[in-house]
Amino acid sequence: MATKPSIPKGTRDFGPSEMARRNYIFDTIRKAFKLFGYTPIETPAMENLSTLMGKYGEEGDKLLFRILNSGDYLKDSPQTLIAERDSLALTTHISEKGLRYDLTVPFARFVVQNRNDIQLPFKRCQIQPVWRADRPQKGRYREFYQCDADIVGSESLWNEVELLEMIDEVFRNLKVRVAIKLNNRKILTGIAELIGESDRIVDITVAIDKIEKIGLEKVQEELLSKGIKETAVEKLAPILELKGDNAEKIASLKEVLKNSEAGLKGVEELEWVVAQFDDLGHDCALDVDVSLARGLNYYTGTIIEVKALDVEIGSITGGGRYDNLTGVFGMPGLSGVGISFGADRIYDVLNQLNLYPEAIGESVKVLFLNFGEKEAAESMKLVKELREKGISAELYPDAVKLKKQMAYADSLKVPFVAMIGETELADKTVNLKEMASGTQVKFPITELASKIR
Amino acid sequence: MATKPSIPKGTRDFGPSEMARRNYIFDTIRKAFKLFGYTPIETPAMENLSTLMGKYGEEGDKLLFRILNSGDYLKDSPQTLIAERDSLALTTHISEKGLRYDLTVPFARFVVQNRNDIQLPFKRCQIQPVWRADRPQKGRYREFYQCDADIVGSESLWNEVELLEMIDEVFRNLKVRVAIKLNNRKILTGIAELIGESDRIVDITVAIDKIEKIGLEKVQEELLSKGIKETAVEKLAPILELKGDNAEKIASLKEVLKNSEAGLKGVEELEWVVAQFDDLGHDCALDVDVSLARGLNYYTGTIIEVKALDVEIGSITGGGRYDNLTGVFGMPGLSGVGISFGADRIYDVLNQLNLYPEAIGESVKVLFLNFGEKEAAESMKLVKELREKGISAELYPDAVKLKKQMAYADSLKVPFVAMIGETELADKTVNLKEMASGTQVKFPITELASKIR
Repeated sequence: MATKPSIPKGTRDFGPSEMARRNYIFDTIRKAFKLFGYTPIETPAMENLSTLMGKYGEEGDKLLFRILNSGDYLKDSPQTLIAERDSLALTTHISEKGLRYDLTVPFARFVVQNRNDIQLPFKRCQIQPVWRADRPQKGRYREFYQCDADIVGSESLWNEVELLEMIDEVFRNLKVRVAIKLNNRKILTGIAELIGESDRIVDITVAIDKIEKIGLEKVQEELLSKGIKETAVEKLAPILELKGDNAEKIASLKEVLKNSEAGLKGVEELEWVVAQFDDLGHDCALDVDVSLARGLNYYTGTIIEVKALDVEIGSITGGGRYDNLTGVFGMPGLSGVGISFGADRIYDVLNQLNLYPEAIGESVKVLFLNFGEKEAAESMKLVKELREKGISAELYPDAVKLKKQMAYADSLKVPFVAMIGETELADKTVNLKEMASGTQVKFPITELASKIR
Repeated sequence: MATKPSIPKGTRDFGPSEMARRNYIFDTIRKAFKLFGYTPIETPAMENLSTLMGKYGEEGDKLLFRILNSGDYLKDSPQTLIAERDSLALTTHISEKGLRYDLTVPFARFVVQNRNDIQLPFKRCQIQPVWRADRPQKGRYREFYQCDADIVGSESLWNEVELLEMIDEVFRNLKVRVAIKLNNRKILTGIAELIGESDRIVDITVAIDKIEKIGLEKVQEELLSKGIKETAVEKLAPILELKGDNAEKIASLKEVLKNSEAGLKGVEELEWVVAQFDDLGHDCALDVDVSLARGLNYYTGTIIEVKALDVEIGSITGGGRYDNLTGVFGMPGLSGVGISFGADRIYDVLNQLNLYPEAIGESVKVLFLNFGEKEAAESMKLVKELREKGISAELYPDAVKLKKQMAYADSLKVPFVAMIGETELADKTVNLKEMASGTQVKFPITELASKIR
């Protein structure tokens, strides 16, 4: 078996330097979650397919990774399906489990299953990988991490404000300049009502999204060509052309949607959230954007999306309010709102902009070179002493040529190299080389820890 | 779909309090890894089956969770296998990927795949879940975490000493009293040579293991009944009865194995490791135990196993040296040594002995009660201020009855509850209740952060 081994396409290994960068991102997000009172949970990688199926649309069902049942999985499968090689229909007989597709459905399942132990409102965060059998491409992987924070059991819009605050906190700490786009599902409902075409929301938001690129006339032509009535397209004009700052946009929306109860409620919610967020004061921009139409299948109120300002990449964080997430598991009427940080895209952004602090990924602080058994034994005592003081240290394990040992120190970017050779062993000293400056000093071993500090 | 949802058997959800406990364990292990210079890597949950198969014995192959190929997986499968319902043979045609079974094989695969980017010796740690389609039972799960540290590319026994040091460090920090059992595969080879029965190592170690329980005579009877020759059983007697401290055991082994080159080499290695470890000074016991026979298929030198002294549970950490881990992937001759902390069993031990520090799992430090919109807006400003100072805080999102809000504070064990009602809003003060003592004080809002500290 001499062929070079490989990993499944769309998956990745992360070596030490990549891990240091990724952990910097995860730690920043984790710190914010803690600061804001979101406590962590974890759910299994495998869920029953009955939990996962039908939650992500037909396309999503196809993208689930399925686990083959153990043992003689074909034993009880219907003969006709086998004979007809009906892969799709046979699947339910030979596979009962799948890998989680996101963290939201497992969270909803968790809440329902543990309803008796959970104090509402329940604020949870969850940082775990998810799996999708998507066609791999640049920036899209079959295994990637989601970092979710949700609060369920409270309809208060303060939760929205808090999540926006947390987005601001995370990206300010990561030094990524972002714009937070904000919409409300009820506004989209209002727009659909206005033009009498409730089922055309997606066409309309796609059109709104194009206005800057191709102009009002072309967008109107497109809408007409898609079969939306001329009167409706006319009524839409003020929304398509929505301009100005958030206050102006909100004022226009109020005017246009004055006859839609749902629409006005959406505008009101949006206005309140924007006002509270602004009142608290922030650097990052909050953009009212009625073309924002993510999660139309489940979001019922606020819709949030975050874009990096300095990198061309899709949404790096998104979220929204859902009024019936747990209904599908038999627990209706529980409102919640949540966001998901896309760790892998954030990683791409930080890589492109090189926004990592210099100190990350540092190896051990002190490497002791190995001059032979007696010297190594003495060095190990010092290694142990440093570790007891919380200073990371190690002994090069083999007494090989110093050139090789120094190459190791260089490749690991070790800040200090310590040397106890024959002379030092005799007079109880240590030679310490600071690698950045190249300076080398010799002093009694008793002074080592204090010199390193 | 009103049936209560569930998770696959053998898997677990971890809620906030369980996560706090588990993270305490993971953080302790992670801290030791860092202190000792082991840098983290991560590998994908899914590996190609060609990577996994044949590495864990026939039994292990059966315990692999297999991923069903996407799309029309039956399309290109041989008709005969389908017609004959040959589940086992069909598997290779409809499944190309599996979930990782441990972290060792993925690590070996990683080293070979990235051989050109890796500086040897390579010290890595890896903390990730693994999956086994084992029959679930108490303490055995289908998804569990392993925490591995390995060093490859060095034959030095200092690596063994360092791993023993790290075991001591981790369990001392966790306050778990342990015994570290130590053996060497070469000693077992020597014993087998001695009695002329190289393929009976397992029978012999099982017998040695029973000696304390059933006595020498019974063990000898058992060995004879298993077809081991009488002369061999006689030669074994001194090893079966191996007594005394480590030095005495080592002396006996040297005498008994004096005609076996491999055996003497094993004793010599063991002696050196014990001497260095003792020389550095420790609290935990290091027990030479020739009945220790884990990983006989791959360990070639040192064998390590850790037992908790105060809880009846299997091995909570184990490891050893392997001379040819990467050989199966086409990279022979790379020696390594590693250990794996069994996080889930360590969790069981800490739970049984209740060894967690009191402070873990603390929620936010300050909860602001919600007295209505204006008061809440003022409270949010203080929440934000506290967070900016690194103090975790939150506002109760809804202006519901105070009794309900206080019940929430109690259930989360919030240390401080802050109140800004109508009066406090007017005179710019805040009421702070320390929940443990029940004392409540009122002061200007400008003093809040300093009072909390």
